[in-house]
Amino acid sequence: MSSARDTSMANAFIPGSSPLPQTMEALVERRERVLGTAYRLMYQEPIHVSRGEGVWLFSPEGEKYLDAYNNVSSLGHSHPAVAQAIARQASVLATHTRYLQDEILDYSERLLATFPPAIDNVMFTCSGSEANDLAYRIAKYQTGGTGVIVTETAYHGITDAVSQFSPSLGPNVPLGAHVFKVPAPDNYRLGAEAAAIVLNGVDVALDAMAARGIKPAALIVDSIFTSDGIFAEPRNFLAAAAQKIRAAGGLYIADEVQSGFGRTGTHMWGFERHNVLPDLVTMGKPMGNGFPVAGIAAQSQIIREFGLNARYFNTFGGNAVACAAAMAVLETIQSERLMDNARQMGDALRLRLAALSARYPQIGDVRGAGLMIGVEIVAADRAPDKTETTRLVNGMRKRGVLISSCGAGHNVLKIRPPLIFQPEHVDIFVAAFEAILSRPETAGPL
Amino acid sequence: MSSARDTSMANAFIPGSSPLPQTMEALVERRERVLGTAYRLMYQEPIHVSRGEGVWLFSPEGEKYLDAYNNVSSLGHSHPAVAQAIARQASVLATHTRYLQDEILDYSERLLATFPPAIDNVMFTCSGSEANDLAYRIAKYQTGGTGVIVTETAYHGITDAVSQFSPSLGPNVPLGAHVFKVPAPDNYRLGAEAAAIVLNGVDVALDAMAARGIKPAALIVDSIFTSDGIFAEPRNFLAAAAQKIRAAGGLYIADEVQSGFGRTGTHMWGFERHNVLPDLVTMGKPMGNGFPVAGIAAQSQIIREFGLNARYFNTFGGNAVACAAAMAVLETIQSERLMDNARQMGDALRLRLAALSARYPQIGDVRGAGLMIGVEIVAADRAPDKTETTRLVNGMRKRGVLISSCGAGHNVLKIRPPLIFQPEHVDIFVAAFEAILSRPETAGPL
Repeated sequence: MSSARDTSMANAFIPGSSPLPQTMEALVERRERVLGTAYRLMYQEPIHVSRGEGVWLFSPEGEKYLDAYNNVSSLGHSHPAVAQAIARQASVLATHTRYLQDEILDYSERLLATFPPAIDNVMFTCSGSEANDLAYRIAKYQTGGTGVIVTETAYHGITDAVSQFSPSLGPNVPLGAHVFKVPAPDNYRLGAEAAAIVLNGVDVALDAMAARGIKPAALIVDSIFTSDGIFAEPRNFLAAAAQKIRAAGGLYIADEVQSGFGRTGTHMWGFERHNVLPDLVTMGKPMGNGFPVAGIAAQSQIIREFGLNARYFNTFGGNAVACAAAMAVLETIQSERLMDNARQMGDALRLRLAALSARYPQIGDVRGAGLMIGVEIVAADRAPDKTETTRLVNGMRKRGVLISSCGAGHNVLKIRPPLIFQPEHVDIFVAAFEAILSRPETAGPL
Repeated sequence: MSSARDTSMANAFIPGSSPLPQTMEALVERRERVLGTAYRLMYQEPIHVSRGEGVWLFSPEGEKYLDAYNNVSSLGHSHPAVAQAIARQASVLATHTRYLQDEILDYSERLLATFPPAIDNVMFTCSGSEANDLAYRIAKYQTGGTGVIVTETAYHGITDAVSQFSPSLGPNVPLGAHVFKVPAPDNYRLGAEAAAIVLNGVDVALDAMAARGIKPAALIVDSIFTSDGIFAEPRNFLAAAAQKIRAAGGLYIADEVQSGFGRTGTHMWGFERHNVLPDLVTMGKPMGNGFPVAGIAAQSQIIREFGLNARYFNTFGGNAVACAAAMAVLETIQSERLMDNARQMGDALRLRLAALSARYPQIGDVRGAGLMIGVEIVAADRAPDKTETTRLVNGMRKRGVLISSCGAGHNVLKIRPPLIFQPEHVDIFVAAFEAILSRPETAGPL
């Protein structure tokens, strides 16, 4: 047991690293006193928020922050349709799913209509972690195996089982002995070979399992490789990966917690960009725009035996308030054509960022799909530049724009604005970014 | 992999077992189509609910049910203070805990004030399962062990890790090889020996672990042994059990998902009835009166190393809406003295049930504390009578009163009314119960 504070979260506030305003110091102190050591704040100078509206977060003192980071409040903060749906249903009924209720059925049918017909069942949890945990339980039951394959810097959640296949949590959360990693499809560094290298990695992982007598349960993949550094391309190779895991007796699980609900701009679900049909799909974060609701969608034959024999009950999962929130989110995405907006705004933002890369050599790559955008920050020879990345993230925060970082080298800017982003927000983002790019000497305010 | 439908849930609706009203058949059919095989309904004839208010649930057709089962809506269904708190906060802010926010600190301080001073940290999750899962992760980290001791028919939740130490899930969810069971403190059958038998069980379990080279991580105990059959007495022996697990290097975890938040009538937390100071406490169900919020409370030195090194982040856990709901619940419990009410109503209900036991020999035992009540249903020689238990549960449902069953023999009526129960509800409950007791020939309506 090491007592060194973990440094695997690149963008964490380090207590005592720099002086804070007094009111903020007091909050930090209260927080450490009651919440303890496990909680992290973001940014060298954390932010204090008391209100959110649309793309904006506000401090009690009236500072405002453009939220270009949060993949939960996908419709914008405090969206009135969601808030009203929650308020209405919370005053009528919120009980468990062992009674017949219309809300869960109405929502489930509408949700399943967004999937290919073969994905015909849905099950509800409270968090994406619970969804991935349930998917893993089902995969183990169905296959009789335990082995898991994930990408190099994957994040799938924080339950005991799921944290064991979430290498991005860092060395203090060790991988399980049954967990095997494959390279991420890093087409910035691997170029045209990226897909082949991932697929070869799956073969190597399956061989390594076999050599240890470990039977495969699943290959689980974030369909846009968010914590690996966001790789929207290459595409389509995931179908071949799914074929390999199935041939070895395992399941293919698409983790859509990041790429789902239209974020990629062209498809409701990230796996559709790859023309792969998953056995199980997991979803979470934006599903309730902040209300705790998540779940899995599945081919019914995959969950049938598990369901008959092991059953599943999640006290709050799929309750009527959760379903009302989720229904409001789905209806708004569809009626306001937010997926289209994500595509247009994402294209516009990436174009502007790519233009900056001509003048600022530290921008090694601009990539992504829709409003899931990665900007790779490098030194000479494409070497990951974590220091400059941290400077940019904190510089943006000082200018009132919230982003963070990801990737194995902690050197990819993670940009995930709400799907309601507008051209003026792209302008604000780019202006702030150029300002901090052009002033390498300081992360301080203009 | 067996394909027989599991029968370990005593009170489950069996599709096709008896004819249902047509609208209900249609809902059951929709449910099976979209939710699949894992979901269970309660009762031979399920109930269809569309509204809840106070102690009552209502069907769209206006049938009403006295809810004497649900340990989530502890303040009553759709409590206005909770609904308003949720509505207000959902329209203002619901974002993650990596920004400074007042709501989580205000609630945490108020919550911790209900604990002994040594319990000085709180961490938030979305469900009781996630709370127990996190407690187990911490216990493993802190102790370097993996071994878990639980009671014979314990239920602690449904994540992959936690389901492995939840024997009540039945034989299709096998225990982990690192999990060891001890008898429940069944003072109905074991009498004055009950405590000693449990404590001896802990010794035997620790020996069994040692013989297998398994290092102990934790003893985890529902402080009122709900799924074991509800044992409010004997008391105090848990302090000795805690001493034993600590001497062996493990932690003592009090699972307060069932016994917490005043349900036992005399103490906010069930462990206080036993004069034991836990290392970790987990809580959930009634914490948000239906809003998905749960968590752990801990002695800060227990979570310190885990927190520094492994960190913890739960996207929805502790968000401002969850904290607003939880704050409204805690304030209401305190300002309306609901713990006192639970004690008085629980005493009254148990007294009336005990009086019935003189006339109805199938009532073997009436026990519990506050509004956590178990009624053991037996045949000759205290043999568990699951058939009669199922008849009583379904008979009560036909008379509009909702309860369920628990215990290793599925023969203990599980009675958990909301803490706002009033004398007239006790009357309704007892009248329905006597009616069904006195008509052994039928579970049908009067």
